[in-house]
Amino acid sequence: MATIDANPPSGTRDFLPAEVSRRERAFATIRAAFGDHGFEPLDTPAFERLEVLTGKYGEEGDQLIFKILRRGEHEATGEADLALRYDLTVPLARVAARYGSQLPMPFKRYHIAPVWRADRPGKGRFREFFQCDVDTVGSDSLLADAATLVAVADVLDRLGLSGFRVQLNSRQALHGLIEAYGVPEALAESALAAIDKLDKIGADRVAAELVERGVPTGAVDTLAGDLAADDLTARVRERLAGTERGRTGLAEVDRVLELAGEVPGGRIEFAPVLARGLSYYTGPVFEVVHDGLDATIAGGGRYDGLIGMFQGQDVPATGGSLGIERILLLLEQQEVDLQRGPDVLVTVMDEEAGPDALALAQQLRGQGFSADVYVGAGRLGKQLKHADRRGAGAALIRGADERAAGTVTVKHLASGDQTAVTEADLADHLRRLLQD
Amino acid sequence: MATIDANPPSGTRDFLPAEVSRRERAFATIRAAFGDHGFEPLDTPAFERLEVLTGKYGEEGDQLIFKILRRGEHEATGEADLALRYDLTVPLARVAARYGSQLPMPFKRYHIAPVWRADRPGKGRFREFFQCDVDTVGSDSLLADAATLVAVADVLDRLGLSGFRVQLNSRQALHGLIEAYGVPEALAESALAAIDKLDKIGADRVAAELVERGVPTGAVDTLAGDLAADDLTARVRERLAGTERGRTGLAEVDRVLELAGEVPGGRIEFAPVLARGLSYYTGPVFEVVHDGLDATIAGGGRYDGLIGMFQGQDVPATGGSLGIERILLLLEQQEVDLQRGPDVLVTVMDEEAGPDALALAQQLRGQGFSADVYVGAGRLGKQLKHADRRGAGAALIRGADERAAGTVTVKHLASGDQTAVTEADLADHLRRLLQD
Repeated sequence: MATIDANPPSGTRDFLPAEVSRRERAFATIRAAFGDHGFEPLDTPAFERLEVLTGKYGEEGDQLIFKILRRGEHEATGEADLALRYDLTVPLARVAARYGSQLPMPFKRYHIAPVWRADRPGKGRFREFFQCDVDTVGSDSLLADAATLVAVADVLDRLGLSGFRVQLNSRQALHGLIEAYGVPEALAESALAAIDKLDKIGADRVAAELVERGVPTGAVDTLAGDLAADDLTARVRERLAGTERGRTGLAEVDRVLELAGEVPGGRIEFAPVLARGLSYYTGPVFEVVHDGLDATIAGGGRYDGLIGMFQGQDVPATGGSLGIERILLLLEQQEVDLQRGPDVLVTVMDEEAGPDALALAQQLRGQGFSADVYVGAGRLGKQLKHADRRGAGAALIRGADERAAGTVTVKHLASGDQTAVTEADLADHLRRLLQD
Repeated sequence: MATIDANPPSGTRDFLPAEVSRRERAFATIRAAFGDHGFEPLDTPAFERLEVLTGKYGEEGDQLIFKILRRGEHEATGEADLALRYDLTVPLARVAARYGSQLPMPFKRYHIAPVWRADRPGKGRFREFFQCDVDTVGSDSLLADAATLVAVADVLDRLGLSGFRVQLNSRQALHGLIEAYGVPEALAESALAAIDKLDKIGADRVAAELVERGVPTGAVDTLAGDLAADDLTARVRERLAGTERGRTGLAEVDRVLELAGEVPGGRIEFAPVLARGLSYYTGPVFEVVHDGLDATIAGGGRYDGLIGMFQGQDVPATGGSLGIERILLLLEQQEVDLQRGPDVLVTVMDEEAGPDALALAQQLRGQGFSADVYVGAGRLGKQLKHADRRGAGAALIRGADERAAGTVTVKHLASGDQTAVTEADLADHLRRLLQD
């Protein structure tokens, strides 16, 4: 027994109280905000039947799925029949297929839950991590896309992450761009992947990569010239106006900008080379970047071909995903030590004091305070240290003398001040004391 | 693709919005109540290394563990190296071993999380279900046991389940009882398992079972006589007073009763034949039963030998577990259709109305309302039906005429009443309308 490793499995984390509290607070804020925007919560099992997941994430993704061994007599086969959830989109597609007619359509749902991927664990990369998705199923209106942007922005704002930029583009506009610059259609996805890196690697290296990927030099030269220009956005707008696909994409972007208006906590802008990598997007795409924090904190887009995967038909859908683990990390760094322990810790001076301490704590709870009772074996000094460690606001001390006199000694832990107050005055005294 | 079963895996559930909302509300109440009692939240990974779990739940339990196949090149071995959490106690023991000195001692934690067991699924029995545990690690004081009872009672009370009885016994008292009636020590656990069924099967069948289990007829006769008596508790008290173990156990029970005092929402009583089945209990044990609901809704006790399993030493611990799935079911049955949708649903009358609808919704959110916007393609009738289905309080209608006049038509969905109000009056009007 002594040889068992007490660490959590590689790539997973134990969350100790202060961290759970911080995470729960953020989740509560997110739930309330999405609720205010008319999105409803959904939850699905941690595992799915294996066949539901395989083939949905590409060959590389399939290898990262945690598979569950068959049980009982079948265990010896070494085969798996279940697998841990890899994302929240496939479960949503399954739910849409299973409960379609029971759900109000369009169905607006959010889902905050852990997913599991057998990735090589690394700095800030986990095998168990939370995703936070918000999606609208069953609407092909750009209203749904705009409503997603506004909701995501509002959530970020309420989390205290204001000052971000929502970068908006459209897959149609991107394909128009490919066409306008004369990149062969067959190289479209490959070229877009290179162009998407502009912010990270600069125009020159994008150009070099385009050449490597086989894009004709003529096209690369024009593209590189625009990418390096200060008026990139205006230039792209002009080029897009020259092709039908480009005009369609531009109209899409402009309509979403018009619908969303001013987003809470940040601003929204056309980002002409934003591609969002994933080829399943079919309409508007967006990313939320925070310059001050140098981080992408959310992203999403329209993906009309995915949610119908179990229904054998296209079901329009659009949504977004908060980079919740990254956001939690940012909140932790910004945090002004918010986590507090109980309002009071009731100390226990002697055998006699036990029933009195529990009753006093319960009485205070009835008056709106949180109250811990010291249940260990330490003497007063140790109990006060424990109160401090728990982050209690005050420690209550009541020995035989105080009990006889009907008083309580209140020790304010931040200042160290001690005051004896009558039982009748205790609640008011604590309220004043804990106000600051 | 069309052949994929869209149901969740056998023994698991999808939780649709109304159900997630109900569950989250209950969890929030529980978190707040345990927090008020000085318990802190803990969370651990969904899976553990296999060796952490095996051998902890008996042979039968081991077979119910969901095992995770090794990955990559090792997948072909058909071996498992990880396994899904089976309960919340073994993870707590691991955390105590791993973070001992970082935790305030005594460490009071609660943990609300799903666990997984490959049980045969049946009515009300699931393979993925939530547990809700509250435990105090590192205190051998009966104060900790009493504080648990009070906290559990307070949680149940705040959940609206008042009117319960907390039944209290002690493993010491049970062993004293075995001794007092002359049951051979070797048959103690077996005899206690039979006696524990008194409430369910009655004194006669308990007696028959004791005989079957090999308890000498002399002992069975005395026992059966007491079990059938109206003054069972008084009789057992008298018998216990006759042995040292019995006296120790009785003193333990009486001290916890004294410490706990009056528990919120229910009453607490000595339950002389309550055994709580599990042989790992070492001190006080309790169960909370609700006669009106004919259900055991919580239980627990002291188990000083378990938490130290990874430390090679005994670590005192006491705790309880809410039967949270059963409680959620009871709350669902009692529920007076509490779930409500958004305060308002903003309808969208035409292409023009899109930006206006999103802006109006966001303005209302700033004024404290939750506001959904219809993002589908339906005409007004369909949109109003959708508002109804979503449980919205009111639908807002604003066509070209209303926009020109600066008014909004508010349709109260419960009554069907429609009123045109000015934009300036909208918030006040809604507040009045939604008050009832």
